[in-house]
Amino acid sequence: MSLRDKALACRDASAAIAGLDTEAKRRLLHAMANALAAEEATVLAANARDMDAARANGTSDAMLDRLCLDATRIAGIVAAIREVATLPDPVGITTRRETRPNGIVVERVRIPLGVIAMIYEARPNVTADAAALCLMAGNAVILRGGSDAMHSNIAIATALRRALKSSGLPEAALTLIDDPRRETMIELLQLTDIVDLAIPRGGEGLIRFVAEHARVPVIKHYKGVCHLYVDREADFDLALRLLVDGKTSRPGVCNALETLLVHEDIAAKFLPRAIARLRELAVDVRGDDATRAQVADVTPATEDDYAAEFLDLVIAVRVVDNIDEAITHIRRYGSDHTEVIATRDDAAAGHFIRAIRSAVVMVNASSRFSDGGELGLGTEIGISTTRLHAYGPMGAESLTVERFVVRGEGQVRHPTSE
Amino acid sequence: MSLRDKALACRDASAAIAGLDTEAKRRLLHAMANALAAEEATVLAANARDMDAARANGTSDAMLDRLCLDATRIAGIVAAIREVATLPDPVGITTRRETRPNGIVVERVRIPLGVIAMIYEARPNVTADAAALCLMAGNAVILRGGSDAMHSNIAIATALRRALKSSGLPEAALTLIDDPRRETMIELLQLTDIVDLAIPRGGEGLIRFVAEHARVPVIKHYKGVCHLYVDREADFDLALRLLVDGKTSRPGVCNALETLLVHEDIAAKFLPRAIARLRELAVDVRGDDATRAQVADVTPATEDDYAAEFLDLVIAVRVVDNIDEAITHIRRYGSDHTEVIATRDDAAAGHFIRAIRSAVVMVNASSRFSDGGELGLGTEIGISTTRLHAYGPMGAESLTVERFVVRGEGQVRHPTSE
Repeated sequence: MSLRDKALACRDASAAIAGLDTEAKRRLLHAMANALAAEEATVLAANARDMDAARANGTSDAMLDRLCLDATRIAGIVAAIREVATLPDPVGITTRRETRPNGIVVERVRIPLGVIAMIYEARPNVTADAAALCLMAGNAVILRGGSDAMHSNIAIATALRRALKSSGLPEAALTLIDDPRRETMIELLQLTDIVDLAIPRGGEGLIRFVAEHARVPVIKHYKGVCHLYVDREADFDLALRLLVDGKTSRPGVCNALETLLVHEDIAAKFLPRAIARLRELAVDVRGDDATRAQVADVTPATEDDYAAEFLDLVIAVRVVDNIDEAITHIRRYGSDHTEVIATRDDAAAGHFIRAIRSAVVMVNASSRFSDGGELGLGTEIGISTTRLHAYGPMGAESLTVERFVVRGEGQVRHPTSE
Repeated sequence: MSLRDKALACRDASAAIAGLDTEAKRRLLHAMANALAAEEATVLAANARDMDAARANGTSDAMLDRLCLDATRIAGIVAAIREVATLPDPVGITTRRETRPNGIVVERVRIPLGVIAMIYEARPNVTADAAALCLMAGNAVILRGGSDAMHSNIAIATALRRALKSSGLPEAALTLIDDPRRETMIELLQLTDIVDLAIPRGGEGLIRFVAEHARVPVIKHYKGVCHLYVDREADFDLALRLLVDGKTSRPGVCNALETLLVHEDIAAKFLPRAIARLRELAVDVRGDDATRAQVADVTPATEDDYAAEFLDLVIAVRVVDNIDEAITHIRRYGSDHTEVIATRDDAAAGHFIRAIRSAVVMVNASSRFSDGGELGLGTEIGISTTRLHAYGPMGAESLTVERFVVRGEGQVRHPTSE
């Protein structure tokens, strides 16, 4: 079966998924969770083949860890599917209703997008996580995982498709592309009459490849260069808490802090304390001249440091004249992901919120809350740093769109035309 | 100044527009309306040059009519700008607010998209209409009109930019591209770091060209193949009213009806009456065998007729076995624009609404209401038949996106990490 034929079958299957009510979708997700749990041995055997091949290829330990499944991780995937089944169903929600002067009643109602293509790399759990969230939002899904995880992905997808079949639904609603060639991925990304949205998840290289070749709509984010601005009116203890949590609680993720901006009026008091604490936690601190005037042995920061997503225990620091210089810095070096202000001054907080155009802006809270689960979306299918459709963490609702439902009693636009 | 430099200046100017409050934007739009009214003579002189050139090129009468301005039309454009100034401001609206278990308050707040590129053809009024709506939604705008209307567009844009300047705002917030070459349009459509959204308005050829070459997000619709399904339980008088209004009140627009589907149980009663009425109104009726069994001299309909956007007094007719066959027909031949059911049966209406995935679905109301003004958006900047960001007529709100604003009191994700 050609890629196009598989994708067409998925599109045909999407109508059946779109037509399911909330309870039917919940039952389907529990059936998927059960099927995956029942196939634990098969999935582990497939994963062992992927791991053997990856080791033989000299794959890095970090990548092997992402690829590896064990009984605990499979139980986690099963639990995650059941968790998605508890989410509110975004489909069919009427968000607005208005009666027009001529009496027609205009509603805005959420419907599924249709067919979602997920493009991802080594983590086989994405196969189940993404499928569950797409289906819960009434969509069919085409999964294109990394070749390293192919056997694992096939085993997981086979189990999940069995649950679709046993639920009386078309298996094509969950279609795994098992052809690892890049040409096939490009063909998938250009099926403009079939795929409603592509969501790439992985390293910047994969995402740029997808953005470059896609003709279908893509929602993506490249990186998170998140800033903490410590205002003149900040509570120092609070600011330090946000700094330590943002930089050190999990430095390898996109909502970790990369840059600290400090108002010059408090630099002499705040910076020595902050830098000492960061260094206790093994953070490599790089600063501008004003920072080094406070703590002499700080490494000089380069332009590249301010643009970097370190994903590591490294932070760039800069002293700014005022809040507007902080805003200008963020506009110049930021990635539209997440920015934080620490301040007790409501006016400063309001100014920061209005002037910053990133997807998430926070006042006196850690950048690490910039996550679908933490922000109340239940789970997330990705993050958007493009101001279109969704901006920031994307949950089930981002896999739907509002359309118009109009009810009348025979109203026409030009009554005289009859 | 290169295209890229102009676009960068527009992006820089977008921050000033995004920062305006509602009253400042309303004052700006009235200043723009005043400036355009004051330049009526200049605009008419420029338009006369465009008209002369177009006539010399043998341009069609229909195209000349779209291009032509006179005092009445300029007054209409001025009034349309003032009308946009009365619209609700979508920017800054908090759509949702939730306090999470850890006490952080998560809001969703609308912000402008940033820089909108409008790509359009002969109608010079779009220069003012689109600019007004983009600015009211807090965006900067890059306008790329057709070469036929270039002098008119320059005169209008110059007047509007004067109002920006006199309002203390950067003129670059309204940037007209006066280089008519297609390569320049392609370059504009690939400025992924500057343009947040491109909206093409015009014929299918222009829209396909934009979709083909754009690397920036595009929202568009190709055509409107709108259907009226007359159910077994329809009120015949009502159905006939919708049919006549949908097909004949303005056949050249995208929300006109193109196809009539009739339940077989009522075909013998409804079709002869409907076809007689359509013929009185000079409509060319093309039908399937079952239609011709009712009215023998109807022209046979081809496959192409069912897929056609006639934009003329032509209609394709088909008798269907039941509502599901109507739904299948619409899925196969429709363009995801607007579909109508005429019925007194609430269950049939509900089934039709759920099964039809077009941008606008109507029960007992004319397809001609599928328009931003009629649906309560105030005005429209375009129509989307892509299920992403916006679906259906797009108003000012579609030029914004929701982002996250989070307020805390020092909460961190891993309190133990400090």
